Amino acid sequence: MAHDKAVPSETTLHQDERALRTEIVRVCRLMHERGLIAATDGNVSTRLGEEHLLTTPTGVPKGLLREEDLVITDLQGQVVPGGAHDGARPSAELRLHLEAYRLRPDVAAVVHAHPPMTTALTVAGVSLAPCVIPETLVNLGTIATTAYATPTSEQGPQVIRALIGTHDALALDRHGAVTVGQSPMDAYGKMEKVENTAVVLAAARALGQVKILPLDEIRRLVAMRREHLGLSAEAAAPDCARCGACPGFRWND
Amino acid sequence: MAHDKAVPSETTLHQDERALRTEIVRVCRLMHERGLIAATDGNVSTRLGEEHLLTTPTGVPKGLLREEDLVITDLQGQVVPGGAHDGARPSAELRLHLEAYRLRPDVAAVVHAHPPMTTALTVAGVSLAPCVIPETLVNLGTIATTAYATPTSEQGPQVIRALIGTHDALALDRHGAVTVGQSPMDAYGKMEKVENTAVVLAAARALGQVKILPLDEIRRLVAMRREHLGLSAEAAAPDCARCGACPGFRWND
Amino acid sequence: MAHDKAVPSETTLHQDERALRTEIVRVCRLMHERGLIAATDGNVSTRLGEEHLLTTPTGVPKGLLREEDLVITDLQGQVVPGGAHDGARPSAELRLHLEAYRLRPDVAAVVHAHPPMTTALTVAGVSLAPCVIPETLVNLGTIATTAYATPTSEQGPQVIRALIGTHDALALDRHGAVTVGQSPMDAYGKMEKVENTAVVLAAARALGQVKILPLDEIRRLVAMRREHLGLSAEAAAPDCARCGACPGFRWND
Amino acid sequence: MAHDKAVPSETTLHQDERALRTEIVRVCRLMHERGLIAATDGNVSTRLGEEHLLTTPTGVPKGLLREEDLVITDLQGQVVPGGAHDGARPSAELRLHLEAYRLRPDVAAVVHAHPPMTTALTVAGVSLAPCVIPETLVNLGTIATTAYATPTSEQGPQVIRALIGTHDALALDRHGAVTVGQSPMDAYGKMEKVENTAVVLAAARALGQVKILPLDEIRRLVAMRREHLGLSAEAAAPDCARCGACPGFRWND
Repeated sequence: MAHDKAVPSETTLHQDERALRTEIVRVCRLMHERGLIAATDGNVSTRLGEEHLLTTPTGVPKGLLREEDLVITDLQGQVVPGGAHDGARPSAELRLHLEAYRLRPDVAAVVHAHPPMTTALTVAGVSLAPCVIPETLVNLGTIATTAYATPTSEQGPQVIRALIGTHDALALDRHGAVTVGQSPMDAYGKMEKVENTAVVLAAARALGQVKILPLDEIRRLVAMRREHLGLSAEAAAPDCARCGACPGFRWND
Repeated sequence: MAHDKAVPSETTLHQDERALRTEIVRVCRLMHERGLIAATDGNVSTRLGEEHLLTTPTGVPKGLLREEDLVITDLQGQVVPGGAHDGARPSAELRLHLEAYRLRPDVAAVVHAHPPMTTALTVAGVSLAPCVIPETLVNLGTIATTAYATPTSEQGPQVIRALIGTHDALALDRHGAVTVGQSPMDAYGKMEKVENTAVVLAAARALGQVKILPLDEIRRLVAMRREHLGLSAEAAAPDCARCGACPGFRWND
Repeated sequence: MAHDKAVPSETTLHQDERALRTEIVRVCRLMHERGLIAATDGNVSTRLGEEHLLTTPTGVPKGLLREEDLVITDLQGQVVPGGAHDGARPSAELRLHLEAYRLRPDVAAVVHAHPPMTTALTVAGVSLAPCVIPETLVNLGTIATTAYATPTSEQGPQVIRALIGTHDALALDRHGAVTVGQSPMDAYGKMEKVENTAVVLAAARALGQVKILPLDEIRRLVAMRREHLGLSAEAAAPDCARCGACPGFRWND
Repeated sequence: MAHDKAVPSETTLHQDERALRTEIVRVCRLMHERGLIAATDGNVSTRLGEEHLLTTPTGVPKGLLREEDLVITDLQGQVVPGGAHDGARPSAELRLHLEAYRLRPDVAAVVHAHPPMTTALTVAGVSLAPCVIPETLVNLGTIATTAYATPTSEQGPQVIRALIGTHDALALDRHGAVTVGQSPMDAYGKMEKVENTAVVLAAARALGQVKILPLDEIRRLVAMRREHLGLSAEAAAPDCARCGACPGFRWND
């Protein structure tokens, strides 16, 4: 089920390729500076017109990426003729991005990173889904955690398939997180928010208690989310099936 | 009850608008670099003469803010003609700032951020109020935690109303913190101190013990606070009603 | 037992000395910025042709290192005539590097740093070896912890002797970590991954659980490691003798 | 009892004032970037010839300090005529520095900062003194914690008096740390090492165990410390009286 938002028009998407290259390089540098990736980890892509993607190459430390290192592929992930210098190839994790674009005609960019506290929560089997921080709920909705998938394998797109249509931010079991947005910077901003949420949840647990928001407040925040982002009631609803923090409660019951 | 400090004269406030824009942009970059905000979070404002405010726009990643992105409003938060480019609007959280300016004629700037450890303490229901770190007590007084308010709603100004008149730094339940000061950099410096205090308190709890300062030392530090900041005895007093860490003790009993 | 990878040809190694100096300085600055070293801690070296090394001097804060500060030595660690300015000497820890080059003709660079969470795990006697994070297993293999050695002493090369031939990343008991790679940046990237792994393991333990990967998934990841890096079955195998997290299991039984 | 190292000659000390201003500004920026101070916290000084000090002013955010903001005082802390611009005054904490210079003719610089994990350990009543990390023991000796002193008061010099003669790095109870060295950068490097040590100790405790080094290894490291720094046996000895981690053991018994 896709978000009921308008598909971005060709005009919106056909931004200046040069500006998009600059934006992706900036996002990669920020990811590294904030410790959301180590070394060559992480990958970023954006739509380039209706039929292409601009994406990061495999094997390059993302903190040192240059604009000319980026790779242009089609929507199946094949490098287009002239789309890369020096035999550069897209990351094997581009599979995750392709699946996200397929199921989300409304998004223009995808970010995959390895934020450490998000990863730690999945390694410990602790969910990021509970409605705890109001702005996380309004801006990201439920941060669901996918099933485990072998990195770079075909399992990657499979485990996000059931979720990415209705979630802008997913924790990947023992493998970081993926976020989608209207631009590389927008998707990256959601990644920062995911990790911030993870840091707060982990610290609060260590302090002894994680207060869940009351149900009437959750309803108010979901209404704000719906209005703020122009979502249907269904698309804005929290994913109670992935949570269970409010015992016995199901949003759509 | 407002602080008994002199209202800044028009001369003080009518600083060069250009310099204030530069200072706000610098504060926003620092907030992002130090992890006190994620993405588009956070907002900063400053008085511009007696009847206007200069403030950050909504929706812009604060680490990338430019001087020309700022917005000029009146003291009711309405954008003044020519006060913003390209349809930029102030943050919905400007309501918090307006309330602070209304109750604190002595302050010239307000900062709202989402420092993660401060937020985690509120999520865990742990108070930042106890008198633990001497310099926090001298420089900030009691860091009280407000009641919960739905972000961007009318509850925001309501929950700070009873506190902001007598506190320069407040933790907002599950929603970061707000600080006030004589300039954007001054208010921002208090935000750094709030988060530093939260980091120390959280770590000390994890280590097993948080030593509260002895009462006679608290009296000495409050006297220093009073002298250092030119405050009345009442304004300098710790907010024991919000704390309870020294059992049975009330400052003004 | 050395990795069964081709020895790099003279052509590969005889890179431009100037470029290698720039790369080492960049690595040192990154190590300091990310908190993987304090002050004058840490050292980096790289092969310079078949008979020499280019390495960091002792006693200089690595965040302030300049290209001209580097030292050229032979493979016994003796400064070559004209190989250093102003009486600069290589670090006493160069012994570790020399041992790594001796046992690993396939590596071109060595990094030693003091990443704090890696060090904390060794101070607490907690192993980094368990197969928990799939990308750590694929990219680094088992992160084994050496026996304790007095820093700068002859024990240093002794305790890594049994391990460095088959491990690209080692935790040194109460003394940080050492990594090897195809270039200073490659070895440094592994250092970032070691510390990231340590951060995740420490946080997951604090959260109450560290999920070990299932055995069939470990087999799949080791096969990926083997294919990805062109390793023999033996070289790609996890070092179960140093772990014990999967009770009773031994990879080569 | 002072360290038995040579008093630096006038030649050494009469370095270029301009270079010292640059170095202090760099140290202040590093302190802020690494989170060792918040806002206007912290202060740095260095000897300027035999009768003067160059030091940071009070009230300025140290991350924004400029070379011309520094203040020249005599060895009693009085600003010398022409030693400051615009009425700048030295920090009230300069008292700590003056005491250090008085008791340590061998040191040329003093740094005081508020490193958060060091502070947290003192708030929790946990000592940094135990011999745990070999390089801390060799480079810093015992990190003793002083008694509590009201910040900026006369108690500050009193509580360091018994310790600073024989310790290069002290934790100040609930008030950060002070380090001394041969230059501002040298003293600052020790501050980084103190906080790194605190981070490792706190994390290891959270992980469940802090391994103390064996006594024979402590003897070996102390011998290295003695030789490395040219200290007397007495000056190089660990301060067992401030520790107690090895039960019943006293170094000089």
